[in-house]
Order: sequence, then structure tokens, then C-alpha cells
Amino acid sequence: MYNIHMILEDERLDDLQLDGLKLIQNKKQFCFGTDAVLLSSFANVKNTSTVIDLGTGNGIIPLLLYGKFKPKFIMGIEIQKDIYELAVRNIKLNNLEENISIINGDIRNIKEYFQAGSFDHVVTNPPYLKAGTGILSTADTMAYARHEILCTLEDILKATRYLLKSKGIFTMVHRPSRLNEILSLMKNFSIEPKTIRFVHANINTPAILVLIQGLKDMNPSLTVENPLIIHKTDGTYTEELNMLYGRN
Amino acid sequence: MYNIHMILEDERLDDLQLDGLKLIQNKKQFCFGTDAVLLSSFANVKNTSTVIDLGTGNGIIPLLLYGKFKPKFIMGIEIQKDIYELAVRNIKLNNLEENISIINGDIRNIKEYFQAGSFDHVVTNPPYLKAGTGILSTADTMAYARHEILCTLEDILKATRYLLKSKGIFTMVHRPSRLNEILSLMKNFSIEPKTIRFVHANINTPAILVLIQGLKDMNPSLTVENPLIIHKTDGTYTEELNMLYGRN
Repeated sequence: MYNIHMILEDERLDDLQLDGLKLIQNKKQFCFGTDAVLLSSFANVKNTSTVIDLGTGNGIIPLLLYGKFKPKFIMGIEIQKDIYELAVRNIKLNNLEENISIINGDIRNIKEYFQAGSFDHVVTNPPYLKAGTGILSTADTMAYARHEILCTLEDILKATRYLLKSKGIFTMVHRPSRLNEILSLMKNFSIEPKTIRFVHANINTPAILVLIQGLKDMNPSLTVENPLIIHKTDGTYTEELNMLYGRN
Repeated sequence: MYNIHMILEDERLDDLQLDGLKLIQNKKQFCFGTDAVLLSSFANVKNTSTVIDLGTGNGIIPLLLYGKFKPKFIMGIEIQKDIYELAVRNIKLNNLEENISIINGDIRNIKEYFQAGSFDHVVTNPPYLKAGTGILSTADTMAYARHEILCTLEDILKATRYLLKSKGIFTMVHRPSRLNEILSLMKNFSIEPKTIRFVHANINTPAILVLIQGLKDMNPSLTVENPLIIHKTDGTYTEELNMLYGRN
């Protein structure tokens, strides 16, 4: 067993600047970024909700969701054994074993772990790139986090449809280049897109991320929210970003 | 015959602030707005292109496209006889009969008027509302311009597919609430969405319009451009809007 407070070689300890939460990250693995922060805020989880994070990585999203919204319970599922173990250490480090639980499993076999309709809210920050596109990282754990090697967008939506209660909420962050495919797959699995928000590095550049929220088995009516801008034209963070990072 | 320079009762004469172009509008019919100006600019038509505007109304879009881009030739099609006649008067008023031609016809019967693959570029500012939704205007011509009574989005995309050359360009302005349906129909008719731009009244409000451009029979790769913001937070127009309206 690890000593949960011990930071291993290649690891670093970050203060999440939220509710005193801390996070151990492996510098050779995928470290959390703006995506996870923006997704957690956009998810706007109810404090009465049961939540699951598909492909939870080192547990950053459950921790941020707990810090921001204190939902009833959060589950995370992660397929890679070593990253799963890091997520478990992160939950213990924050003494949140009663609020957050991580399992080591494959979302393609989700029916082995959960009953249908067990969750009010599914969140995910999935791999953005199709398998076979982009430059594959030599480190496997990085490649799995970035490329759809271990699960595709279709696998995620299939699992989401199974896991959500009727009218349950799905919240995802992804790349705008795949918007068409995202909307088409959500439709196929009857997760109706309700709110989309595009994220731009600054007001003059194309969107770099899309935040999307859908409801299971609801009628169509889509709102494209105001753009989320990261930097002002002078290069400093916008007020909204500073607020999201707890810097004001 | 009308005297083309005569302004009838209920009509007004507007200066388009572009190349000396003028436009007669009927105050009881649909008068052009920001939508037409934004669409025309976003279309970015090549000066070698043959262009058709589906549902051209009083001819505003062909006139703006001519003023901005001087394409090889522009055709407009309008189903309502009285509005068609107004468009013809507007083309004559600007002495552009050699550059712009309007026909009185139904896009559902497009094969009766044009050969397949006759155009490089299709533009349209279609009715935004589904038939049976919203408040129907008592004036028929207004209702037809706003509601999908005489043609649906599917009719438009079917006609577009027929009219465009391979790799031809489709440019449309529509409501963001129908984005999912728009992308799905474009896919069905093999008009691949390439560029989307959302229009916001100001930086803090949801999108009110979506500008979308697709190419016939091309591979997927979508860019969501920087947001187009109409007003600054102090209520004045943004620099981009002033530029589009030729005010600086």
C-alpha cells in the first residue's frame, strides 16, 4: 500500500484553490487543465444529484464538482489501473471517501457495474481525438487520455443513455471540430442537446472547446450561450476566468 | 407597368450605404435587417462565382452581394408575386439587370428552372420558424417570410444539393435553436458544415443568429469562428458592426 500522503517520484502536489482540496498528479501522465475546470463549472450539478464521471483520470473532476456543488454522491470510473490508483489516493488525501468513490472499470462494460438509470447526472472530459489521428504519445497512458483507443464517443453516449434516469443530465467538454458528430450521436441516443457554450482563447479567435449539456428523452430546444472568453486582448485573464479559478 | 423610380404608398426608399445602391421596401412587408447584412458579408462570395439566393424577398441579398463582391452573376428566386415584382423594380432601380436576375418561382420545383449543378454558391435567409409555431402574422406575405409555410429547411437543402456544383458553397443565416436540425439536414444532403459563426447581441447574452457555411461533398472538418458581437456593453455598435454597415 501507498502512504496516501507520500508524493512519489514524477508526482507533484497541487492546491486546487477550492475548499482546501489538494490533488496529486503524475507529471508523466495527463495533468488536468482548463478543460476540467470549465467542465466542472458548466455542469452546475444539483446538491441532490448522484453523479458519475466517465473516464475520471486522476479524479480531478469529482474533486472539483464536490468542491463547487457538494452533490449527494459522486462516482468516477477509470479503466487504467495506475491512474485509477492515483484517483483513489486523491480521494483519500482529501478525506472524501464518503462522498466520492472511484472504480477501476471499462465503460464499454458499464452494465456489469451499475443498474440502469442509477444516476441524475453524467459528466465526462473524454479523449478528443479519433484513434489514428494526430501524433500518438509514446507514453501509453497519455495516448489513452487523448485518443479514442479505449473508448469512443459512441461508447460514452451508449453508457450515458444506460446510466441516466429519465430527464437526467449529460455534460461534456469536447472539441468544436467534432460538433456535428457529437450532436448527431446525442440525437441517436436520445440525449437532447439543450445548452452549448463555446470557449475561445480570446474574442478574435475560433472556438477551442465546446461545453455541451443535454437531457435524456426531452424535446428539442437548444440555446447557444454567450461565449466563454479566456483571455482579454491584452493577454490577461478575463474576469470570468479569474472567478472560475477562485482568483477574485 | 410601374415607373421604376416611383415610390408607392406603404413603400420607402433606403440608401444601402454601399456602392450607391438603393432599395425600395414595402413597410407592410418584411423589411431587411441585420440578418441580411451579416449573411451577405459572411458569404464571402468569389468574384468568379455564379450565385443564387433562395427566397430573395425584395432582392436585398443579391444587391448586397453585388455591392460587396461583384460576383459573375446573381440569380434570385421568390415565390410571392408581389414581392418578386418589388425585387425586379429594385434591380432596375440600380441598373443591375445585367448582373442580377430575379425569377418568380417555387424552390420546391427548382428542376423546372435550372440545370443540376448550375451554381457555385447558394445563399439563403430562410423563414426561421416552423409552420404552426410562434404567432402568425395576419399579413400573409409576412407570415410566408417568417414561417416555413411555402418551404421548409429540408426543401431548401434539397434544392441546394441540386443547384450546387461539386464542392460548391452553401451559406445560410438561421436561428441557433435549430442548429441540431440544420446540421443533421446538411449531413443528409451531403452539404458538409465547414464554418459556423454565432451572432450575439452582446458578449453576455446567448446567440441570436447562426451563420453557417458548408461545402457539397467535402470531408468533415468544422471551425466555430470567433463570435460576432453586435453591441458593446455600453450599447454602442462594435467596430466590426460599424465596418459591416460601412460606418467607418
